[in-house]
Amino acid sequence: MNTVTMQGNHEQQAYDRGITIFSPDGRLYQVEYAREAVKRGSASVGVRTPEGVVLAADRRARSPLIEQESIEKIHGVDDHIALASAGHVADARKLIDFARRRAQIDNLRYDESIGVETLTKAVTDHIQEYTQTGGARPFGVALLIGGVEDGEPRLFETDPSGTPYEWQATAVGGGREDSQSHLEDNYEDDLTLEEGIGLALEALAEASEDGLTASGVEMTTVPVESAQVEAVDEATLAEHIDDRDLGGDDDE
Amino acid sequence: MNTVTMQGNHEQQAYDRGITIFSPDGRLYQVEYAREAVKRGSASVGVRTPEGVVLAADRRARSPLIEQESIEKIHGVDDHIALASAGHVADARKLIDFARRRAQIDNLRYDESIGVETLTKAVTDHIQEYTQTGGARPFGVALLIGGVEDGEPRLFETDPSGTPYEWQATAVGGGREDSQSHLEDNYEDDLTLEEGIGLALEALAEASEDGLTASGVEMTTVPVESAQVEAVDEATLAEHIDDRDLGGDDDE
Amino acid sequence: MNTVTMQGNHEQQAYDRGITIFSPDGRLYQVEYAREAVKRGSASVGVRTPEGVVLAADRRARSPLIEQESIEKIHGVDDHIALASAGHVADARKLIDFARRRAQIDNLRYDESIGVETLTKAVTDHIQEYTQTGGARPFGVALLIGGVEDGEPRLFETDPSGTPYEWQATAVGGGREDSQSHLEDNYEDDLTLEEGIGLALEALAEASEDGLTASGVEMTTVPVESAQVEAVDEATLAEHIDDRDLGGDDDE
Amino acid sequence: MNTVTMQGNHEQQAYDRGITIFSPDGRLYQVEYAREAVKRGSASVGVRTPEGVVLAADRRARSPLIEQESIEKIHGVDDHIALASAGHVADARKLIDFARRRAQIDNLRYDESIGVETLTKAVTDHIQEYTQTGGARPFGVALLIGGVEDGEPRLFETDPSGTPYEWQATAVGGGREDSQSHLEDNYEDDLTLEEGIGLALEALAEASEDGLTASGVEMTTVPVESAQVEAVDEATLAEHIDDRDLGGDDDE
Amino acid sequence: MNTVTMQGNHEQQAYDRGITIFSPDGRLYQVEYAREAVKRGSASVGVRTPEGVVLAADRRARSPLIEQESIEKIHGVDDHIALASAGHVADARKLIDFARRRAQIDNLRYDESIGVETLTKAVTDHIQEYTQTGGARPFGVALLIGGVEDGEPRLFETDPSGTPYEWQATAVGGGREDSQSHLEDNYEDDLTLEEGIGLALEALAEASEDGLTASGVEMTTVPVESAQVEAVDEATLAEHIDDRDLGGDDDE
Amino acid sequence: MNTVTMQGNHEQQAYDRGITIFSPDGRLYQVEYAREAVKRGSASVGVRTPEGVVLAADRRARSPLIEQESIEKIHGVDDHIALASAGHVADARKLIDFARRRAQIDNLRYDESIGVETLTKAVTDHIQEYTQTGGARPFGVALLIGGVEDGEPRLFETDPSGTPYEWQATAVGGGREDSQSHLEDNYEDDLTLEEGIGLALEALAEASEDGLTASGVEMTTVPVESAQVEAVDEATLAEHIDDRDLGGDDDE
Amino acid sequence: MNTVTMQGNHEQQAYDRGITIFSPDGRLYQVEYAREAVKRGSASVGVRTPEGVVLAADRRARSPLIEQESIEKIHGVDDHIALASAGHVADARKLIDFARRRAQIDNLRYDESIGVETLTKAVTDHIQEYTQTGGARPFGVALLIGGVEDGEPRLFETDPSGTPYEWQATAVGGGREDSQSHLEDNYEDDLTLEEGIGLALEALAEASEDGLTASGVEMTTVPVESAQVEAVDEATLAEHIDDRDLGGDDDE
Repeated sequence: MNTVTMQGNHEQQAYDRGITIFSPDGRLYQVEYAREAVKRGSASVGVRTPEGVVLAADRRARSPLIEQESIEKIHGVDDHIALASAGHVADARKLIDFARRRAQIDNLRYDESIGVETLTKAVTDHIQEYTQTGGARPFGVALLIGGVEDGEPRLFETDPSGTPYEWQATAVGGGREDSQSHLEDNYEDDLTLEEGIGLALEALAEASEDGLTASGVEMTTVPVESAQVEAVDEATLAEHIDDRDLGGDDDE
Repeated sequence: MNTVTMQGNHEQQAYDRGITIFSPDGRLYQVEYAREAVKRGSASVGVRTPEGVVLAADRRARSPLIEQESIEKIHGVDDHIALASAGHVADARKLIDFARRRAQIDNLRYDESIGVETLTKAVTDHIQEYTQTGGARPFGVALLIGGVEDGEPRLFETDPSGTPYEWQATAVGGGREDSQSHLEDNYEDDLTLEEGIGLALEALAEASEDGLTASGVEMTTVPVESAQVEAVDEATLAEHIDDRDLGGDDDE
Repeated sequence: MNTVTMQGNHEQQAYDRGITIFSPDGRLYQVEYAREAVKRGSASVGVRTPEGVVLAADRRARSPLIEQESIEKIHGVDDHIALASAGHVADARKLIDFARRRAQIDNLRYDESIGVETLTKAVTDHIQEYTQTGGARPFGVALLIGGVEDGEPRLFETDPSGTPYEWQATAVGGGREDSQSHLEDNYEDDLTLEEGIGLALEALAEASEDGLTASGVEMTTVPVESAQVEAVDEATLAEHIDDRDLGGDDDE
Repeated sequence: MNTVTMQGNHEQQAYDRGITIFSPDGRLYQVEYAREAVKRGSASVGVRTPEGVVLAADRRARSPLIEQESIEKIHGVDDHIALASAGHVADARKLIDFARRRAQIDNLRYDESIGVETLTKAVTDHIQEYTQTGGARPFGVALLIGGVEDGEPRLFETDPSGTPYEWQATAVGGGREDSQSHLEDNYEDDLTLEEGIGLALEALAEASEDGLTASGVEMTTVPVESAQVEAVDEATLAEHIDDRDLGGDDDE
Repeated sequence: MNTVTMQGNHEQQAYDRGITIFSPDGRLYQVEYAREAVKRGSASVGVRTPEGVVLAADRRARSPLIEQESIEKIHGVDDHIALASAGHVADARKLIDFARRRAQIDNLRYDESIGVETLTKAVTDHIQEYTQTGGARPFGVALLIGGVEDGEPRLFETDPSGTPYEWQATAVGGGREDSQSHLEDNYEDDLTLEEGIGLALEALAEASEDGLTASGVEMTTVPVESAQVEAVDEATLAEHIDDRDLGGDDDE
Repeated sequence: MNTVTMQGNHEQQAYDRGITIFSPDGRLYQVEYAREAVKRGSASVGVRTPEGVVLAADRRARSPLIEQESIEKIHGVDDHIALASAGHVADARKLIDFARRRAQIDNLRYDESIGVETLTKAVTDHIQEYTQTGGARPFGVALLIGGVEDGEPRLFETDPSGTPYEWQATAVGGGREDSQSHLEDNYEDDLTLEEGIGLALEALAEASEDGLTASGVEMTTVPVESAQVEAVDEATLAEHIDDRDLGGDDDE
Repeated sequence: MNTVTMQGNHEQQAYDRGITIFSPDGRLYQVEYAREAVKRGSASVGVRTPEGVVLAADRRARSPLIEQESIEKIHGVDDHIALASAGHVADARKLIDFARRRAQIDNLRYDESIGVETLTKAVTDHIQEYTQTGGARPFGVALLIGGVEDGEPRLFETDPSGTPYEWQATAVGGGREDSQSHLEDNYEDDLTLEEGIGLALEALAEASEDGLTASGVEMTTVPVESAQVEAVDEATLAEHIDDRDLGGDDDE
């Protein structure tokens, strides 16, 4: 490490130590570093098809003794909305709690289900507050929020700045670039839900070094027909992985 | 990077670390850096004609899979007021929420629509507070607020210091200088709304490196006649872009 | 920049970083820097004559498309008091709001108009608090508060330390020294209001590099006779500027 | 220590001094240092078998005059849930209090016992808050929470980031790597509770330099049959240690 | 500036940055720097005679256009107590407000006038709080509080540490040493009020570089006989200045 | 002092300046420094025998004119519990007040005496809070809490981290290592209370450079039989000191 | 000043900047610096005799025009308790107010006079809080609190750490060491009150460079017989000073 680099680092430190301030070029370093925390997490992928939304996540465990089911990365928010996360796990849990409470409040107050977009924007507003007012750091997590709203499948991303994006298909977390490239090259407007599941697995495999295993993948769909969050079981996953030759070493 | 530069930077840091203090030459660096955040955003343009106000924004997406409609940069505040933003998206969303709540309060309390100037000044007062009292950073966003008030078209800008400006035509965000030059050279007092739409697109094209696409532009007008916020549809945009030869590569 | 200068700066930084502390020589640097913010603003001038008070301000716009009327630098506080500002515009707006609310409270509570001196001291008390207690920066603005009180014309200045001064004639903002010199050389105790208007314009011209234009000047009087805030119209201004040969390039 | 190292340290300090901020590579140093505090504590081991859960802890005393029983590292939370800790003892006591109060509230409010997973997640939510909002440091402790829920044995770990993990068998504290290796090599799905006790002691011995003594080990089981927290007495421990030849110098 | 000096300064900074802490030799630098702020102000003098108390202040204006009466440095607190200030003007105004409110409260609560000593100690208690608890700087002002209490003339000083002193005669502000010397050399126990006025003017002249002018001096007495605050008019001042040959250039 | 040492110190400072943060190796420096404050205090010793608990403290005065009784280092908390302290005296007094109030609350609320262990844990919980949340430093004191609970003698130590330990015999404060060694070499399970008194004095003498004097020692017992705090008088102490030849120069 | 010294200073600064933290050797620098503030004050002496308590203080004025009576260093707290102070005068006044309010509360609540020891401990508890919790500095003052309680004379000292000491005779403030030596060499258990007065004056003279003057000494006694605070008049003081040849230059 040479001196120039060090000085550059010192300069940068002036802006990221105080979390809620701009750098001279108008950037918020803490938010950018929180995005790095997202990249340190394993990948999650979302694909929206006319028949429904697919959420997939890599939940490979660091030890064979860990209960793989306990590494939940996809969570139901309401009966018709699910979300997948990437990044700092404990932060993700906080946002999931926030999203669930927000959904419940709508159910109780208006006696109707919260919309996917409304929910996403409530979550991003919450995230933004952690980037502007002092005394806290940003959330080190990105979420993919998918569901069915008035018969339409919707898929949103929230990032650590608190910006919502709506996607046809996207990926968050480690290896996002590779996954996103694959999605952009292969996404079609008229995919069936089955094809969406396959595409999601392919994109997830792009982000993975070792290939997929059925138990190392968590997948949930929200089909338009049922408008219900439905987990995809391990057998179905195994079949898809096998069909598309995405498998890795399953012994792990 | 030489030593003198570094020292200059260190000196500067003393004033921008604490967000609410003056530099020896009477500047507020955090506010100036927030203006840089505005420049990092894509451009928005506003044009006021005797027949109404035009707001236009560049909403080109970073990926073909992103829902272009989700990159909203123009928002209705009330039925007769709209605003366009440039800069940090999550901050813009906060100010839009503030503006909408403020408009609703006036509707409820006085049973009449809020004026464009009254609304603008409420927003800028809110912005100023984030530049004087501690514990928060300024908003990294500029807004163009346009509407019809007592039959008169009005167009305002808010900047990160919390200063309101009224304009005949202006631009905010990346490439502002080029857009503003084009407006100053071509603006006429007696433009029709149609001509205003054309001028706004030309100014937006000035700020863009690749030329415009109908889907990459978001446009809203508030005509004096209807005194209603009206979105301009993609076909109309395409026609204007084509007429004025402002188009870029539409395949993207 | 040599090393000695840098060290001098470092030393100084110790006192201005913490906004509410004294330097070893008993100065409050943040207040002094806020005075620099005042100097960065364009000039305002006040002249008191036996027939009334004159407030004048330079409101030249940075673009021909900006609505010159929107660059308000003179504001009515009550029907018999007006104020002119110089410095950080958003801060000025905060103090104007404070002054207006304060005037209204007196009207409501005591059913009589607030005195010019009483109002000025309420404003300076408010300003002082931002220089002594932590968590905020001083106001980067100076005000000229003029009005008629019990038949007497009064003219006050507030500075960023929160000190009130009463003047026969003075200037604040950029070029203050030149304006003040001109006032000291030419002020007479028995000026008519017309002569006061002329003197104010001359003083404003001293602070300006390019000469005055009628549209680039904002002027308000509070004549003793009416005890009402009265704006001076552009035609009258143009005549005075022409009579005294204070004009610059009017095409701008 | 050479200069480069020092500079590297200085750089790091920028991120760990303010406890709730991200480093440029997206890490939370204070949380990572809290994990070091866990490693400074002596080891605790948890093993889940179909017949129940086993918690074991090293509680060797630093003086023969200390009451070994007072070095409690395993605590009952409810009649069916116990927890073992590793790390900063005073922090562990705080979390145990929190867990007990939380369990009581469920008992009182819903008249039913709290689930092991529900309790764990309440604890991890509490831990996470100490990593995101300012004014406090993270908890320097890891917990193993074991119990029986609806007839099923469950075993969870909480770490200083506030992430919950479910395990078949794991270790926390000093020597974790060695213990965990032993568990991974020797764990079987169909262990009896007796075998689980033996495996836990072996794993504990791996983390110990001197071998085990019955009085230096604290052990608790929650058998599925009784669904009650049951301490394992010293005689039983001595027998197991002897059987497996895990003993060290008992004179200490 | 040599290195040793710089280092000395750095060392000092450690103690005056945090306003409420002691230096290694038991000093409170911020209080000492606030005393420097007092010295930056123009002088005020107080003389107590058996016939009453005299307060005198230098209120020379920095411009001939400033209303000399507006540079008030002597203020009535109650009908029988006045005070003179030296130092940061805006701070002085805050303390005067505090003193007046305090006097009013006593009038209302006990239906009797507040004593000079009681009032002084209330003010110094208030000042002290700004030197011990955080979040604010000390008051950069010294006051001379004079009045008649139970038929006795009293004269007190308050300093920035919050210590009250009772004096026969003293001076505060710029040039205090010269004024005080003159008072010590010339004060007599049995001065008449007239002689006290003369002595006060002489002491004030000692602190002034240019000699006195009647309009540049503000003077108030509280005679024992009337026990009322009485301003000394300009003619009387002119006569005294002339008698004692203390005059300077009156044209200013 | 060489440069490397200094750098090492600087590095350390980063972690102990902010009191509630971990160092990279998982330590809390402020807690460790508070333990140094304990070592700066004179020694206290506790010995538990089947017949009761003995607390002894060194209260040698720094001047012959100080009232030796006023250097209380042993205090009754309740009629059956006493405590001895070592370290920062004013901190000890705070904890003693806390302990007494806590004991009183139990007496009032449950109409029964508080247990020794319950009291100790309430005190350590209180101490821990000063090590985790900001705005305060840890307590620089260690306590020995001794008493009789349900007929059983109990002896606890609290340390600055907030950890409780139960002991048969221990020492805190300056010279702890020597005292503790003596206790470990000479403690027997079946000591009489008389023998316990002797052992406590011997351990205290180990920590002292000059030998003991009856007036320089404070001693309290809580015999099982009476379950009452009983001070040991100076004559008894003198006899024991003489018997065991622990005496120093008594003239002091 | 050499470099090693500077570095030593820098190191120290790390601990005294944050007022409520321990240094690596377990010291609280801010408390030690507050003790230096005590030494900067002039001396106060207390002597307890069987016939009563004597408090004496040096109140020499810095100017002959200051009212010597206004330099009060001895204050009555209650009719039977007085206190003398040394150190930062404004801080002393705060503690005196606290002591008086505390005494009044006891009078009102329990209808009996507060004890000398109870009062002292209330004051020291108050002092301690300023050494442990943030946002304030310690009190830079030591007090001698003397009075008669149940017919017994008592004399206590409070220091800036918040520790109470009971004394037969002691001194605080500048020159304490010399005064204390004199007291230790000459104090007798059976002094009369008259002899106590003499000894106190001698000790005070030891701390003084110029010898005593009757007007420069303030003295109060609380005789056992009256149990009332009684000021010693100047004539009596003059006689004692003369008798013991403690006089200095009285012309001052």
